[in-house]
Amino acid sequence: MQFIYKNSSLLSENKIKETAQSIWPYIKSLKKIKPNNYEASESSINLPSDKSILNQIKAVVQKIDIKGLKYVVVLGLGGSNLGAKAIYDSLLGYKDLFESNYFPKLLFCDTNDPEYTSKLVEFLKKNIKKSSELIINYISKSGSTTEASANFEIFVDNLKSKLKDVSSRVIITTDQDSKLWNMAKEKNIPTLSIPKTVGGRYSIFSAVGLLPLLLGNVNIQALLDGAQDVISACLSENPLENPALISASILYLQAKEGKNINDNFFFHLEHESLGKWYRQLMGESIGKDGKGITPTVSIGSTDLHSVAQLYFGGPRDKITTFIWSKKSANDLTVPNKLLFPIITNIQNKKLSEIMSAIREGVKISYLNQKMPYTEIVLDDLSEKSLGQFMQFKMIEIMYLAKLLQVNAFDQPHVELYKIETKKLLNG
Amino acid sequence: MQFIYKNSSLLSENKIKETAQSIWPYIKSLKKIKPNNYEASESSINLPSDKSILNQIKAVVQKIDIKGLKYVVVLGLGGSNLGAKAIYDSLLGYKDLFESNYFPKLLFCDTNDPEYTSKLVEFLKKNIKKSSELIINYISKSGSTTEASANFEIFVDNLKSKLKDVSSRVIITTDQDSKLWNMAKEKNIPTLSIPKTVGGRYSIFSAVGLLPLLLGNVNIQALLDGAQDVISACLSENPLENPALISASILYLQAKEGKNINDNFFFHLEHESLGKWYRQLMGESIGKDGKGITPTVSIGSTDLHSVAQLYFGGPRDKITTFIWSKKSANDLTVPNKLLFPIITNIQNKKLSEIMSAIREGVKISYLNQKMPYTEIVLDDLSEKSLGQFMQFKMIEIMYLAKLLQVNAFDQPHVELYKIETKKLLNG
Repeated sequence: MQFIYKNSSLLSENKIKETAQSIWPYIKSLKKIKPNNYEASESSINLPSDKSILNQIKAVVQKIDIKGLKYVVVLGLGGSNLGAKAIYDSLLGYKDLFESNYFPKLLFCDTNDPEYTSKLVEFLKKNIKKSSELIINYISKSGSTTEASANFEIFVDNLKSKLKDVSSRVIITTDQDSKLWNMAKEKNIPTLSIPKTVGGRYSIFSAVGLLPLLLGNVNIQALLDGAQDVISACLSENPLENPALISASILYLQAKEGKNINDNFFFHLEHESLGKWYRQLMGESIGKDGKGITPTVSIGSTDLHSVAQLYFGGPRDKITTFIWSKKSANDLTVPNKLLFPIITNIQNKKLSEIMSAIREGVKISYLNQKMPYTEIVLDDLSEKSLGQFMQFKMIEIMYLAKLLQVNAFDQPHVELYKIETKKLLNG
Repeated sequence: MQFIYKNSSLLSENKIKETAQSIWPYIKSLKKIKPNNYEASESSINLPSDKSILNQIKAVVQKIDIKGLKYVVVLGLGGSNLGAKAIYDSLLGYKDLFESNYFPKLLFCDTNDPEYTSKLVEFLKKNIKKSSELIINYISKSGSTTEASANFEIFVDNLKSKLKDVSSRVIITTDQDSKLWNMAKEKNIPTLSIPKTVGGRYSIFSAVGLLPLLLGNVNIQALLDGAQDVISACLSENPLENPALISASILYLQAKEGKNINDNFFFHLEHESLGKWYRQLMGESIGKDGKGITPTVSIGSTDLHSVAQLYFGGPRDKITTFIWSKKSANDLTVPNKLLFPIITNIQNKKLSEIMSAIREGVKISYLNQKMPYTEIVLDDLSEKSLGQFMQFKMIEIMYLAKLLQVNAFDQPHVELYKIETKKLLNG
């Protein structure tokens, strides 16, 4: 993974360095966090190297019959499903449409959408022949999320004939001392815990993300290796060699200049869910005390035909992050002989070459228009690259919060609507 | 469809009325547009009542063998596919995952993503047995969109053994005098035109949207009826009885107060693509001359677990539009006896009731926090309701552009990156 910002951030090297150095004591405190220890709010950075987490997950999976597994239903919201969904969609999501007979599939059900949930339940009722084909992973850090709880009870109730013994086909991921944890233990339902200090949006490398991905045949070791890869650079003492710190400093400085929107512009369709994962990470971590930057997700080249006019012609309120991969596993070539020889500069060109010309053309125009951007260049579309990206971003956001002087780890305002909803449900 | 704004827009009735009245001459000019006439920039409002468009489409379809049709590949970008995709995903999108044997399916391929396009081509090669199972609809208003052209040539080249006679399995939708139109005519390939003045983002009720939807068994008459339904109210002389005008006035006034983001908060998962359609409509129509509002799409309750903290706790830079439907066709009920009796106020509640409590809880919190919003309440999730929503929004955007004194119908800045990309491709 490379992080590129020179020239395009439209900020002087000195300014970035000065900003980066202002949180130097914080970086020093991060470096002091001991391995396999989860006392500090930032201790999610220990997850990729913590062998005990993988061992716990493997121990749970070993006790379950996963031969012939077809569907893993993931019931969780926000931090409980966005990370796993980001990785699944990036690597395997296309199989939902193009390989209906590829198994196991991960089926995510987050909100209580009556249509989608009804159809998913119908689908499972119709397609599951044996209980060994289904695992339900109910993920709720607090153990008391309304939507996840409602969905879980509905799935268990509607699928009881398929599930047979709930304790052999359900896995619960929750905080170790939650009510849900204790009740699951009483019923002998396998449980996996999340370190108390690790909030949902930082939990991708805990059981929250790793269990469903392992069940979905994702190479989670490569994912963790990728994450581990970037940690030392992202904790580097040299501000200009620390990509997470530079990225945070640029976002901070540009926000001060009125760039209150951070557009995350991915040049691979497959990465849209990855963008949504970052949207929560940024939105929930720094959107407080009246401060914050609104994260948006754009897809290239799709959204050039949708919002490029706004980006180039509208208010200059965006700092853009382009994210793209140097390699694609598959490609196709425009034939030499065109049926309609109208645009002739595409003859014999690979799709990846055309996309690259579009992306580079966009970058040139951003520079010409003095629209600031940074770039994250992934080596490829693999687990390892995803691990690098996600770990880089989680540390970047901790730095950004520190620069903005907000708490990166709480989300107090979410209670506002929850309290009102509770009144209505109790009503 | 209902548009609700009183109390929640946080603007006085007088202020809204005054703003609305300021573009009164413009509304008068819209009312003067003659039926079936496409001279004015705004003449997309004539599409829903123009019988000749439906007749042309039906005439083309009648000449094609659609018995046994399985896949309609839609090749177009932005205005050429967002509308049809919005409606398909709202009504039938779930079948991609849950009913792999439901046909015909619409398969959208917009950008030149090497992975997705390769996999889609492979999928078609593998699954198509007879040429009658496939139709390719290549949609390009100008006839010279790089990505659509590259994809089209690749599909035709790779699927030639499946297509056999191109002229019987390809339909081209383009401007009547484009090079593409003329070349298609020479090769006897069926063509459908788009009225010259109707730009992509206003073209859903032309052949651009209607042909693929008709092939996909969508009730396009109901869609058009819905659109027609709202036109007279949206051209009403009484400003406070004209929902499109009130909505535009509120967006305009709130933007002046610093709400430079319009969050479109849909409470049905199925409507995400509908949000993306509106994102283009707003972004491209009013993002110019340094003016504009950035449209975002949120999904309830999913995104409450992702960006609600930012919305409530962060900068107050958003004017929100909640969009929800009074009815769902399907529903499920939380059982009386819970496996984990932790949240007990959901017992015996329908999913739709829980979602409704969440939505109403959110609205109460927005009001308490003085966060302005409006509401669009659809009667149901049908074609008719979608037609109403989309027509309402297209007229709203014309009014908003007029209030901002920008041209709602051009997109001059899109050329900036296209010129650079062209240089690179020619390179």
